[in-house]
Amino acid sequence: MTLSNVSIDGGRLLADLYKLRGFGTYKTGVHRPTYTKVDMESRHWIAEQMRAAGLEAEIDGIGNVYGRSPGDGPRVLLGSHSETQPHAGWLDGALGVMYGLEVARAVGRGVDVVSWADEEGHYAAFPGSRSYIGQFSDADIDAARNRYDGTPMREALQAAGLAGLARRQFEPGRYRCYIEAHIEQGDDLEARALKIGVVTSIVAIWQYRISFTGVQNHAGTTRMAIRRDAGLAAAKLAVAIDELFPKICAERSVWTVGRIALDPGAPSIIPGGAEMLFQFRDVDMAVLERMEGELKRLVAEANAGPCEVVLHTMGRAIPKLMDPDLQAALARSATRHAPNLWQSMPSGAGHDAQYLAQVMPSAMLFVPSIGGISHHWSENTDDADIVLGCQVLASAVADILGS
Amino acid sequence: MTLSNVSIDGGRLLADLYKLRGFGTYKTGVHRPTYTKVDMESRHWIAEQMRAAGLEAEIDGIGNVYGRSPGDGPRVLLGSHSETQPHAGWLDGALGVMYGLEVARAVGRGVDVVSWADEEGHYAAFPGSRSYIGQFSDADIDAARNRYDGTPMREALQAAGLAGLARRQFEPGRYRCYIEAHIEQGDDLEARALKIGVVTSIVAIWQYRISFTGVQNHAGTTRMAIRRDAGLAAAKLAVAIDELFPKICAERSVWTVGRIALDPGAPSIIPGGAEMLFQFRDVDMAVLERMEGELKRLVAEANAGPCEVVLHTMGRAIPKLMDPDLQAALARSATRHAPNLWQSMPSGAGHDAQYLAQVMPSAMLFVPSIGGISHHWSENTDDADIVLGCQVLASAVADILGS
Repeated sequence: MTLSNVSIDGGRLLADLYKLRGFGTYKTGVHRPTYTKVDMESRHWIAEQMRAAGLEAEIDGIGNVYGRSPGDGPRVLLGSHSETQPHAGWLDGALGVMYGLEVARAVGRGVDVVSWADEEGHYAAFPGSRSYIGQFSDADIDAARNRYDGTPMREALQAAGLAGLARRQFEPGRYRCYIEAHIEQGDDLEARALKIGVVTSIVAIWQYRISFTGVQNHAGTTRMAIRRDAGLAAAKLAVAIDELFPKICAERSVWTVGRIALDPGAPSIIPGGAEMLFQFRDVDMAVLERMEGELKRLVAEANAGPCEVVLHTMGRAIPKLMDPDLQAALARSATRHAPNLWQSMPSGAGHDAQYLAQVMPSAMLFVPSIGGISHHWSENTDDADIVLGCQVLASAVADILGS
Repeated sequence: MTLSNVSIDGGRLLADLYKLRGFGTYKTGVHRPTYTKVDMESRHWIAEQMRAAGLEAEIDGIGNVYGRSPGDGPRVLLGSHSETQPHAGWLDGALGVMYGLEVARAVGRGVDVVSWADEEGHYAAFPGSRSYIGQFSDADIDAARNRYDGTPMREALQAAGLAGLARRQFEPGRYRCYIEAHIEQGDDLEARALKIGVVTSIVAIWQYRISFTGVQNHAGTTRMAIRRDAGLAAAKLAVAIDELFPKICAERSVWTVGRIALDPGAPSIIPGGAEMLFQFRDVDMAVLERMEGELKRLVAEANAGPCEVVLHTMGRAIPKLMDPDLQAALARSATRHAPNLWQSMPSGAGHDAQYLAQVMPSAMLFVPSIGGISHHWSENTDDADIVLGCQVLASAVADILGS
């Protein structure tokens, strides 16, 4: 196997991606939350495609779909995830899994493929890849609940037919590396008219749940002066964050209030409770620490008002650098297949690769997102860009396996 | 019948209120939304109690429970509503219906009793009393949907067994007046250690739905500078209202953001849409007009930002004065049974009486709310105050019927 003679089948790749979109189609996107019926059907379908490609495939006790190549010799692990955010895009995650499958078929040996469970965090932060590297315990499973409806993860695994199955563990020495392909999910490649991004590092996401407790009361008979309105307290904190963070953040820092829920949420009732989901991201630990410090200060200020405001930390990850040698291999392949149409860039999104990087050399490859849109059903990438990205990955893998 | 010899049975009244609390008990309160199974069971139970009290009772095509007294002579109509806000109190509405029943039993003639459907507005604003006075058409029913889950009102009426039933209409000449008793739902009586409120006027509620449309996108990969965050736009408007309205309102004006919902409401997705339910109340049309003008100005300012912001008017009621002669009759009775323990006061909440006032002389009587709490399961009133209020109403009704 040499670098020059690996060629993927673009039509076959696109046909498989279209088929996968059929599981939970929503408009031109997909609604396929983790462990739902349609998500499990898609996992079984992926396992079948792995078997048809000559891999030994299984779904493990956390829902990871894992396809192992037979025989000896050097190996790489390729993959991503296949469940989606609610009413979201057809490529996010699915692209990297189907790239893995197509590269396994094209290269013919030494390529294992995986679809990590629940990268989108319906139940926990990256439980699939963390389970694989030994950082998601049975107690973690017991504690995890669906963040939208509160269903216990144990119950969901049982309903999905996964209860009692072993959870596959990392095998030291089996792989040269892990590579994850993904849509960019931003507009940087498109804005520069580039086709390939070689990822340098993955931002860390720090996530919080903020609860507000006031007093529920009648919206007509309760004087303004004595109100303890939890919804207003939540809105004020969101605005205070928005005003302060631009002054203390770094150039590529981002922060988001993704959810505000008022209790009970009726027009004639002063909200007695509110909950906010808040997160921020950066590649620099010092910046992350500074943002958290300011958040704590704003929460303390809010707590001095009429409502009780409590900050619950949900996750504090560490930014992850991608392996330099793998970046170089991807860059060589990109230079060959997309000369002057690629760049190095950080990943603003978290990915399973940040966990795999703890146990083996890891890297990521990006393809453009049309309009920078993702986590929405209208997310898309040009077919030609999808095919090109897979070819770049395949040649890089052949390079790594042959070296 | 003279003013002096009407005496209600306090134990019987309290026992009936306790029984009614059994339909949908939630902690010490009640969860009994309009047209749910438990709401319909309670309506049938109320109709049975009316029949036991000698009234001809029926549930009409909008869900009003209507009990008519036989025979001739002067008549009054007493009542309120029996469904509840979500997870709310046991007395709000139920008190006025059970007062009507007890007064009908105590006075023995000329007292009709009603429980108006959906005063709490699960499907529409006061559809029960508006249907009765001819201001809620079949087209209004067709257009109405449950404000929490979107269920069409037609579908709910069908499921409740009410489809095809006639809707009872106001009969000109049948009544001298309508009187509605209710808990105060504020803390004014309690703060002044008073037991009875004679209502002078009912505030008007002006209600709005405000929609925010931005662009849904990934919370990690979308730069802050290009975001169009609908959730942030909603929070900013809520805070802007809170800062401006104290400067332009009247002494007893109130305003409330009861609901903020972000779409899709997930931690890693920038909200592409948001919706806010907003209302304000006052007894003065000029003040109401001024508040709406300022609201429109703030919405226009918000709309000049990154998101489209649209104000949808849901309701603009007119403040309603209560009948002076009825106020005087209630005041005479209060002076007799609770000397120096009553006051005249406006109602900060909307009530069916504001619609009945359009077709006949109408009045309202308040009893204290412990801690001013209502629209919450912990809402309560001392048993002694409940009994006293009913006695004041009964004597006033005897006075009106005998005059």
